[in-house]
Amino acid sequence: MNASLFRPIVYIAALCGLYLSTAMLIPAMVDLYYGRSDWRIFATCAFMVGGISLMAALATRGTPPTFTKKLGFVLVNVLWAVFSVVGAIPLMFSGPGLTFAQALFESISGITTTGSTVIVGLDQMPQGLLIWRSLLCWLGGIGIVALGLFVLPFLRVGGMSFFKMESSDTNDKPFARLATFTRAFIAIYVGITAAAAISYDFAGMSHFDAINHAMTTVATAGYSTHDASFGFFQSNTLLWVSTLFMTISCLPFSILIVFVVRGRLDSLRDPQIGVFLGYLLTIAVSVAIYHHLRNGTPMGEALAHSFFNFTSLISTAGFTSLDYTLWGPYATMAALFATFLGGCSGSTAGGIKAYRFVIIFSVISTGLKRLIYPNAVYSVRYGRQTVDQETVRVVFLFFSAYILLWVLGSIGMTLFGYDIETAMSAVVTCLSNVGPGIGPIIGPVGNFSTMNEPALYLLSLMMLLGRLEVLSVLVLLMPIFWRS
Amino acid sequence: MNASLFRPIVYIAALCGLYLSTAMLIPAMVDLYYGRSDWRIFATCAFMVGGISLMAALATRGTPPTFTKKLGFVLVNVLWAVFSVVGAIPLMFSGPGLTFAQALFESISGITTTGSTVIVGLDQMPQGLLIWRSLLCWLGGIGIVALGLFVLPFLRVGGMSFFKMESSDTNDKPFARLATFTRAFIAIYVGITAAAAISYDFAGMSHFDAINHAMTTVATAGYSTHDASFGFFQSNTLLWVSTLFMTISCLPFSILIVFVVRGRLDSLRDPQIGVFLGYLLTIAVSVAIYHHLRNGTPMGEALAHSFFNFTSLISTAGFTSLDYTLWGPYATMAALFATFLGGCSGSTAGGIKAYRFVIIFSVISTGLKRLIYPNAVYSVRYGRQTVDQETVRVVFLFFSAYILLWVLGSIGMTLFGYDIETAMSAVVTCLSNVGPGIGPIIGPVGNFSTMNEPALYLLSLMMLLGRLEVLSVLVLLMPIFWRS
Repeated sequence: MNASLFRPIVYIAALCGLYLSTAMLIPAMVDLYYGRSDWRIFATCAFMVGGISLMAALATRGTPPTFTKKLGFVLVNVLWAVFSVVGAIPLMFSGPGLTFAQALFESISGITTTGSTVIVGLDQMPQGLLIWRSLLCWLGGIGIVALGLFVLPFLRVGGMSFFKMESSDTNDKPFARLATFTRAFIAIYVGITAAAAISYDFAGMSHFDAINHAMTTVATAGYSTHDASFGFFQSNTLLWVSTLFMTISCLPFSILIVFVVRGRLDSLRDPQIGVFLGYLLTIAVSVAIYHHLRNGTPMGEALAHSFFNFTSLISTAGFTSLDYTLWGPYATMAALFATFLGGCSGSTAGGIKAYRFVIIFSVISTGLKRLIYPNAVYSVRYGRQTVDQETVRVVFLFFSAYILLWVLGSIGMTLFGYDIETAMSAVVTCLSNVGPGIGPIIGPVGNFSTMNEPALYLLSLMMLLGRLEVLSVLVLLMPIFWRS
Repeated sequence: MNASLFRPIVYIAALCGLYLSTAMLIPAMVDLYYGRSDWRIFATCAFMVGGISLMAALATRGTPPTFTKKLGFVLVNVLWAVFSVVGAIPLMFSGPGLTFAQALFESISGITTTGSTVIVGLDQMPQGLLIWRSLLCWLGGIGIVALGLFVLPFLRVGGMSFFKMESSDTNDKPFARLATFTRAFIAIYVGITAAAAISYDFAGMSHFDAINHAMTTVATAGYSTHDASFGFFQSNTLLWVSTLFMTISCLPFSILIVFVVRGRLDSLRDPQIGVFLGYLLTIAVSVAIYHHLRNGTPMGEALAHSFFNFTSLISTAGFTSLDYTLWGPYATMAALFATFLGGCSGSTAGGIKAYRFVIIFSVISTGLKRLIYPNAVYSVRYGRQTVDQETVRVVFLFFSAYILLWVLGSIGMTLFGYDIETAMSAVVTCLSNVGPGIGPIIGPVGNFSTMNEPALYLLSLMMLLGRLEVLSVLVLLMPIFWRS
């Protein structure tokens, strides 16, 4: 790692600080509008962070560096770290009196679009604080989609290079194309958010709740403005509306971008979409039937809550409407394992993700065939495409590292004093950027407010690891990364 | 699959039935010696099973078929199925009045060297029944080592082909070599059993207990003659003796065979041995320190029980001395994850096994390096050897299938009414052929006697899947296997 990269890294981090400090003016204005004195906190933070960032940016500007893979990895990590710390600053001084560890956890939970909260009494919190939490999610969502579409393919992390957006368009000027795609992406992201806000509003939420929940829905983040999350509204209509928008937010944005830019919908045949919808339907319907048969709940009611809560877990949003772990052990187990799954690549969803399962299943199937006929040629397939060895290798690298981190993290949580259900579900819900866990502390109606500091730091690390597709962080641990 | 293979398969199965019926004369004699009327049951079963097997063998004898991979896969499955059913017959009629599902579970638990029991009141059971359970384990242990050394490498299952016993000896006549190795293996197996029996006897067990526990120790099976397992003896000396013999039984038999046949010990450098001893020591010592610090237990006492119980879990024996899940959540979590690990390849141990972890870690490490320097060549290594793509692929095939079966099995157990701790730990303890789980039902001081029939059948299947290295069973599910 070249020491001369220090300057451009600080420069880009400072720009991001500047960008986030500008965003702090929004909660300041919201608090002003609602007559909350907290506006001073956000305004002060905005000017302090903005001032420091501006000075740092001016001190480090210069010719842009050559963009190398190492620079890319460092940047990705540094940017998310900067976002985390800057996002935490107003949380420390505003409203609920959080410790640094809690504020950092809450901020990381927002920008990684996890949505686990340490705050109790959301219903009484100043509106500025609530909109700040939603904003962190919403901006984090933009960040992660941009990362997934434009940066990770370049770093070849997570097998994403497989999804070149339009491989036939190599004649285009790449930067012009990037600009077009970026504009289209932002327009679509804003559009879905607006559609969700309007729908929530019509379905019965207040304007303020509608905007907040729309932002955290499209980001598949799951922060709510109420301690009871969607349980507050007691409306099945709202559950179905949210289920629809969470599902849309799990689809690859590239499909919508290609549709908007080129008017084509052929990438809808992407096999990950079918697999994602397949496991979503299977789990939601089977849990609803289980709940209906075991507890006698009317089927309509069971379907509404099962679809909402399990779409919420699989989309990695993490809203809840009630305590589904009371439905019985099958629902609890389904919730635990659903937390691993995730949505499609190129969306705001976290988790292992559907396209990796497509590849893993193809590897299992072709592997078994090769055991029977060792000399026949069976290639791993993704839909109609043959998957190259490189992609298969990175998928397994990711999968092993994911399982390993889950095991090590869970063991760590038990050393910090938590029971094994809480430990295992806390780590996976953070690693997959979902939100709720299982058990009495962090279950669907619980929260992370009583967690001790070591646990909060461990889980914050897990959220960042998960959000950056694990491997982007782990490469920094390799000694050879730091040799020039 | 050629229908003409039906005859030789029945023939070989009948030979195995004959062999097992002869073994039934041992419990008959033991019961006669102790004056137990149950000798009639074993004698009757021996003559009935022996008679039917003999008739079947005579009816189907003929020229031996060409040994193909498909025949190999079918044979492996059929033989274990025959052993399971035949082993269950005397259990149904003797002693504790088991249902068919229970007797089958107990028999499979024996021959797969799992050691989970459905019998309560072992201390009062007829000696013939007890020795039959131990014999099933001991013979199952021989079967699995023979399978691992001589059959699975041919089928290329589980990456075992990696461990050719003596690749430099290709000039030997293969069958002469096989016979030498087989004799050496049986001698070593009997020798370790005898050494364990004598040691147990000297350390304070009765002759009968010493022989039974020696048989189930060397098979890493874990059946005891007492409900309280090693807790019955209240002797730390016995715990350490057993820890030693369980550890020896986890080492690759090929090393001992090569030592006996060729007088060489160079294969001790096999990296899986270091990794196996490494995770064994780490877990046992850390749990002992945790227990000491958290519960104030004297360190000597904590070490004895931690080493015994965790060696028991990692060696996949499954003896217990007390309820270590009461030591705290770290001990419980360590027990759950230790159940996945397993010993070395080529031993009686089950689980994922140390050599696969060596390869998985090398894949993670080289994979991360390749992300940094995509054009450099980093090969996956096993000690000094380079691991070929084929082996890496089969290791990941196994690992994914293992995790997948665990997830599906655990979900199944919750549908049969069990809580998620019981469900998850029951499936992994069966899949890894360990013995105890965690939680109030099947924890270290519990047993499987209250399990319902669907759960017993599911867990029986898991034990067989785990014992046959998963893939040997899963190939039968592929439609192309059955096309000629």
